[in-house]
Amino acid sequence: MPRKIPSVTISRLVGYLRVLTGLEQSGVDYVTSEELGAAARVSAHQVRKDLVHAEASGTRGRGYTVAILRRELSSLLGLTRDWNVAIVGMGRLGQALVDYPYFQNYNFRLRCGFDNDPSKVGRSFGALQVHDTSDLAKYVEELGLDIAFLTVPVNHAQSAADALVNAGIRGILNFTPTVLQVPQDVRVEPIDFVAGLKRLAYYLQPAG
Amino acid sequence: MPRKIPSVTISRLVGYLRVLTGLEQSGVDYVTSEELGAAARVSAHQVRKDLVHAEASGTRGRGYTVAILRRELSSLLGLTRDWNVAIVGMGRLGQALVDYPYFQNYNFRLRCGFDNDPSKVGRSFGALQVHDTSDLAKYVEELGLDIAFLTVPVNHAQSAADALVNAGIRGILNFTPTVLQVPQDVRVEPIDFVAGLKRLAYYLQPAG
Repeated sequence: MPRKIPSVTISRLVGYLRVLTGLEQSGVDYVTSEELGAAARVSAHQVRKDLVHAEASGTRGRGYTVAILRRELSSLLGLTRDWNVAIVGMGRLGQALVDYPYFQNYNFRLRCGFDNDPSKVGRSFGALQVHDTSDLAKYVEELGLDIAFLTVPVNHAQSAADALVNAGIRGILNFTPTVLQVPQDVRVEPIDFVAGLKRLAYYLQPAG
Repeated sequence: MPRKIPSVTISRLVGYLRVLTGLEQSGVDYVTSEELGAAARVSAHQVRKDLVHAEASGTRGRGYTVAILRRELSSLLGLTRDWNVAIVGMGRLGQALVDYPYFQNYNFRLRCGFDNDPSKVGRSFGALQVHDTSDLAKYVEELGLDIAFLTVPVNHAQSAADALVNAGIRGILNFTPTVLQVPQDVRVEPIDFVAGLKRLAYYLQPAG
């Protein structure tokens, strides 16, 4: 795995990519490190330092070519190939994610769902078919699943993660508030609703 | 508003608080900056630097007292008071958030939901009653609402945010992929499912 770039830098590169995608959709051709930094809430100096990883070179005055920088960042982040994704846990949150509109923009392909509730197995939500969790390994192989969205109830999070790892999944987007224990070659990215809320609380306090 | 601490620092403080809460629940009394850093994935030096904001002092060798540091951080982050929260958009994602178990741990109180779909207005999801979005201002005042979870469809995100701002809401947890335009005194925290996915993709690439 390419772990040479620190994870805080990866987070910033992801932020730049989001800004660049918006700029490209708005028809903007060039962007300076100052503009990119302002939109991503980091300094222009940091932007220039980070973009060395993308082997991007700007032109003094005019800045970076949006389309080229976006392509370079996408390639660096592994977003130019398809990723096959399953939703594990087809409760309300899992069902909500079927409708979430922005996964497809980045070659993330929702392939199937999993649940152990017999009333859900065999059903479809939108175009997504739900399989029995006990068939995980079979479908990981058959569909080439890379990534799982973990949306099971919190008390099943670790056991579901264990099953995913055993079935060969190497990437988990963790929507549960559990800190998962996984082997070193498995990557977990937490989606923490509460962290965002805590940051909000800080900013909403009256000046003290 | 207390904006003296940079937002990247706030994010790290939120991370430490999460680790400390886990440690306290596990009955751990002391934690060193090295241990806290390892759990939060930052350097011990950074931990010590950040915790100056919390006016926390560790003892060489033994480290910080978990319970005291947790209390200090909670207070700094504004988490020792109640925050009244509404869910705006009672589709699948909004409904899923009603069940999300960890908001209550931090004095975030779900007070009501809003929707403009007549088939949802007047209904309850769990204990949460759904009001008409056109009554926002009334309930913001009546219930003292501070924060909104924005879970409307993406094409309604900006207009819903405008309505929230006009009704007096000053904090928005934005679950839509829209970059919202709000006045300077309103704080938006994005919950970006796709950013986590992009980071995953980077780490799942074969070493090149």
